Amino acid sequence: MKDNKKATAPDWVNIPPAPHTFRSIFKWGAPDEFKHPNAGFLAVVSDALGLADSRFQATGDTGEEPVSCEIPSRLSRGDADTLAAIVGEENFSFGDYDRLKYSTGKAMEDILKLRAGMVDNLPDMVLHPRDQSDVEKIVSFCHEKKIPVYVYGGGSSVTLGLECNHGGVTLVMGTHMNRMLAFNEVNRTITVEPGMMGPAYEDLLNNAPEQLGAAHRYTGGHFPQSFEFSSVGGWVVTLGAGQASSYYGDAYDLVVSQKYVTPAGTFKTLDYPATATGPKVNDIMKGSEGCYGVLVAVTMKIFRYRPENSRLFALMFPDWESGVNATREISQGEFGMPSIMRISDPEETDLGLKMYGIDDSLLDRFMRFKGMQPGSRCLFIGQADGEKGFARNVKKNVKQIAARHGAMYLTAYPMKKWMHGRFSDPYMREDLNDFGILIDTLESSVTWDNLHQLYQGVRTYIKQHAPIICMTHASHFYPQGTNLYFIFLAPMNDLTVFRKFQRGIIEAIVQHGGSLSHHHGVGRMMGPWMERHLGKEQMNILRAVKDHLDPHDIMNPGGTLGLDG
Amino acid sequence: MKDNKKATAPDWVNIPPAPHTFRSIFKWGAPDEFKHPNAGFLAVVSDALGLADSRFQATGDTGEEPVSCEIPSRLSRGDADTLAAIVGEENFSFGDYDRLKYSTGKAMEDILKLRAGMVDNLPDMVLHPRDQSDVEKIVSFCHEKKIPVYVYGGGSSVTLGLECNHGGVTLVMGTHMNRMLAFNEVNRTITVEPGMMGPAYEDLLNNAPEQLGAAHRYTGGHFPQSFEFSSVGGWVVTLGAGQASSYYGDAYDLVVSQKYVTPAGTFKTLDYPATATGPKVNDIMKGSEGCYGVLVAVTMKIFRYRPENSRLFALMFPDWESGVNATREISQGEFGMPSIMRISDPEETDLGLKMYGIDDSLLDRFMRFKGMQPGSRCLFIGQADGEKGFARNVKKNVKQIAARHGAMYLTAYPMKKWMHGRFSDPYMREDLNDFGILIDTLESSVTWDNLHQLYQGVRTYIKQHAPIICMTHASHFYPQGTNLYFIFLAPMNDLTVFRKFQRGIIEAIVQHGGSLSHHHGVGRMMGPWMERHLGKEQMNILRAVKDHLDPHDIMNPGGTLGLDG
Repeated sequence: MKDNKKATAPDWVNIPPAPHTFRSIFKWGAPDEFKHPNAGFLAVVSDALGLADSRFQATGDTGEEPVSCEIPSRLSRGDADTLAAIVGEENFSFGDYDRLKYSTGKAMEDILKLRAGMVDNLPDMVLHPRDQSDVEKIVSFCHEKKIPVYVYGGGSSVTLGLECNHGGVTLVMGTHMNRMLAFNEVNRTITVEPGMMGPAYEDLLNNAPEQLGAAHRYTGGHFPQSFEFSSVGGWVVTLGAGQASSYYGDAYDLVVSQKYVTPAGTFKTLDYPATATGPKVNDIMKGSEGCYGVLVAVTMKIFRYRPENSRLFALMFPDWESGVNATREISQGEFGMPSIMRISDPEETDLGLKMYGIDDSLLDRFMRFKGMQPGSRCLFIGQADGEKGFARNVKKNVKQIAARHGAMYLTAYPMKKWMHGRFSDPYMREDLNDFGILIDTLESSVTWDNLHQLYQGVRTYIKQHAPIICMTHASHFYPQGTNLYFIFLAPMNDLTVFRKFQRGIIEAIVQHGGSLSHHHGVGRMMGPWMERHLGKEQMNILRAVKDHLDPHDIMNPGGTLGLDG
Repeated sequence: MKDNKKATAPDWVNIPPAPHTFRSIFKWGAPDEFKHPNAGFLAVVSDALGLADSRFQATGDTGEEPVSCEIPSRLSRGDADTLAAIVGEENFSFGDYDRLKYSTGKAMEDILKLRAGMVDNLPDMVLHPRDQSDVEKIVSFCHEKKIPVYVYGGGSSVTLGLECNHGGVTLVMGTHMNRMLAFNEVNRTITVEPGMMGPAYEDLLNNAPEQLGAAHRYTGGHFPQSFEFSSVGGWVVTLGAGQASSYYGDAYDLVVSQKYVTPAGTFKTLDYPATATGPKVNDIMKGSEGCYGVLVAVTMKIFRYRPENSRLFALMFPDWESGVNATREISQGEFGMPSIMRISDPEETDLGLKMYGIDDSLLDRFMRFKGMQPGSRCLFIGQADGEKGFARNVKKNVKQIAARHGAMYLTAYPMKKWMHGRFSDPYMREDLNDFGILIDTLESSVTWDNLHQLYQGVRTYIKQHAPIICMTHASHFYPQGTNLYFIFLAPMNDLTVFRKFQRGIIEAIVQHGGSLSHHHGVGRMMGPWMERHLGKEQMNILRAVKDHLDPHDIMNPGGTLGLDG
């Protein structure tokens, strides 16, 4: 099968999708950016999935037709006029394309549906609020009229979190509500509107001396894979975690305070760094995924931007168990956490070495000579940040612990390769999809003592659906546990088959003691498992808050968080 | 006035209180332990407060009479019998002494009342539940009969948090529910019943190899001043912070999961180290001060016990502003946090130097020579913990930053002196009280940019009540802010005068933008300010949770957290 490497590359779609097509909605990232699978990667995939050469000769549904759905808006003329008057000219739309675009996320299910031209769960009207006052008027009016209110941030939800399955309106936060509201260098905080996108947020902080008159450069420390196409508000309301969360914290940790507009009123939580004043409303609202109200401002912690202090590292472990044990020891070492750590299982390691061009290199031959064999060896990459002496000490401890667990130091080269692709890998998804190969992910958090059971249980389920590739890694670390991230590739393009398979993975995660989500959120996808996962008593607490803040169930209704049916 | 130093020491009470006396309830700590103010300290206090020598010739109310209150239990015979049958023989009491003891905390108001023989707010019956099942039966029965349920942990509340002002029953958790339930070295967690006291908890962890068969020794990292006489459950439900919280985290941070018995059912929150599954019920319950249910088990994070890695330090700053600026820079330095940091204002510094015997020493003369003058200089003490290289790097950075702000390094001596008295200083309170001198504290958290306003505003109010000593320090640090802790001493023993004065300090804290509490909790003392502090909308969220979990308002009713009237 190695001959595939020499074969002509498939005829990847390499032009930006035409405006108003289905593809322009589901294509990842910038319309004119592409990252096609390289030959090594494609060879392994073809080999593992037993794909015939003919597989890459013709594409399936590519979604290049214009959107047309002819689902009429169900809003009354009077209600629509009132809402239009609130946001003003040019800030509302009833068009099919807008209604579809702003209710679609980036879940594989979304994509399969759009490729097939299936449209449902549209809002009746799209609104682009200009400020908090607009949001207050919209929520107040919709509360009175019992019109559902959905919120669209960056659109990168992979949990069906954006579906407007009860109609109503969706609020697009990125159009206007993307401004900085305050910068406080003394307190190390920044306050922004929720629609500010990742790159704008990070650029502002990196260039704080020039743009904000600050004494230093800063970083938000939050870099999810969707960083370029997700919003600060989205990070907060879905509890995202960036690739450097082990050091900087996840969105839950990064939030200092929030302001929400709810049917029960507008409020801003307190800014104290710590308090003993009862249960923290700031924490009750985090992760509420639009079901309790609309986030209109958020104050976040910021950190010094000192890339010159970063210390990269990469190591190879002889096997998964020694790699996991080492990462646990690192996480419990009390020398501070690396910002980035990623331990790949043997399957991901082997594929990664091919993607990074390390497979069959001199380095690879040396690794094999040292006993690091394909099918067993596990790649561990990472980075330490923070103050210079701190970062140096973290890396020193990481290397010492890894060595005690039999690891071989690989220089920083594989880490640099990973960093190069860290935000662009999702571009490959469309290419594979075009030829009927599905690539998707699910993830979970887990305590250390249950990691191997979860790993085995979920992979066993996934592997029953051969031919399939399942790459697994842990990438977010805590003294008490970590996450497991499952990436699966299979020749599969039937929505029903995919849904059944994918829901089966969620079931396997829950059955084997993983959390329903480590950092993707719940949305409508994981919603049906919530009551079983948390228990009836705890779900009813979340519902009690919901009933209080949103008695008419207008805020993101229809299954998100499992709050309603 | 320096002559006072040579005067004979006052005739401090130096015998354990007799059983069943008021004094046996309010005396701090162990009945047979004492720590009398030393001559240097007493001289400064007398000088500052303008006390005549005659002040220490005769004591006031010392509370040495036996408790006798003759307030009948209002429970019906039938209800009392049912409750007695639940907990079994010897696990209930209707006695005056027990009812008073288990509804009294250690607030100055509690003490002044007991010294005056004032008794009110008693429970009708004291229960000592044996396990979760007992608690479930009690809560279920009391819910049905609308009998108030209070909870008593270690009894160190300084917020009137233990008053049973609606009668009913109080549950004493320390009698039986003080056991370890699980120890998980892989996950670095321990699960205990809430009534386990600080020293038992810490001893178990320190001796984990011998007592639990562990590979290492551990620490809970939580050392409030009340450590010896407070319970793990109390730390959690009131959101306490230990003296080392800047590194280990406060009780909010230390909790992994909790199990609660509520009128709406029993539930245990999830153990995942991080999740993106909506608002976290674990966090909704933390700090609920008994108003949402009874904590019956808690899983806490644990840390390696490696005192050999501790690095102590002490420095003197020329003034408060430079000291504050340095602690801010340390807290934002991103080299990890020291475990202990305490910057004392000039008034506390001067008194502390006398208490520690440094005043007028060779060191003191050298400090003055270096420009560190009494009335301006500020003592900064602390400690770094964690992995050896980490602790070393923290101390190195602390010293460098402090030097840049004009500090003089003092060796670790003052820090050692502070550590020696860190848990025993409260014993001096009774001695001073016996002679009509009140010593009390209030504390608040604050963002860095508001620290000086809060400091000035509160101290200005306090200083209006001359003669008075007000020592102030910051001792819990975060990148976004810190706390301020106000300790005041005054000749004052009238309850009404004291209450008015003390409530005025709370008002001054709120008016100047401090939080209502950094780590003492809310209780009934701060309760009346809660709605103003959080705003109506946020209070109503806390009330919505209350109404759901405890629809009959039987859980710690009567003003705690400001939830009810």
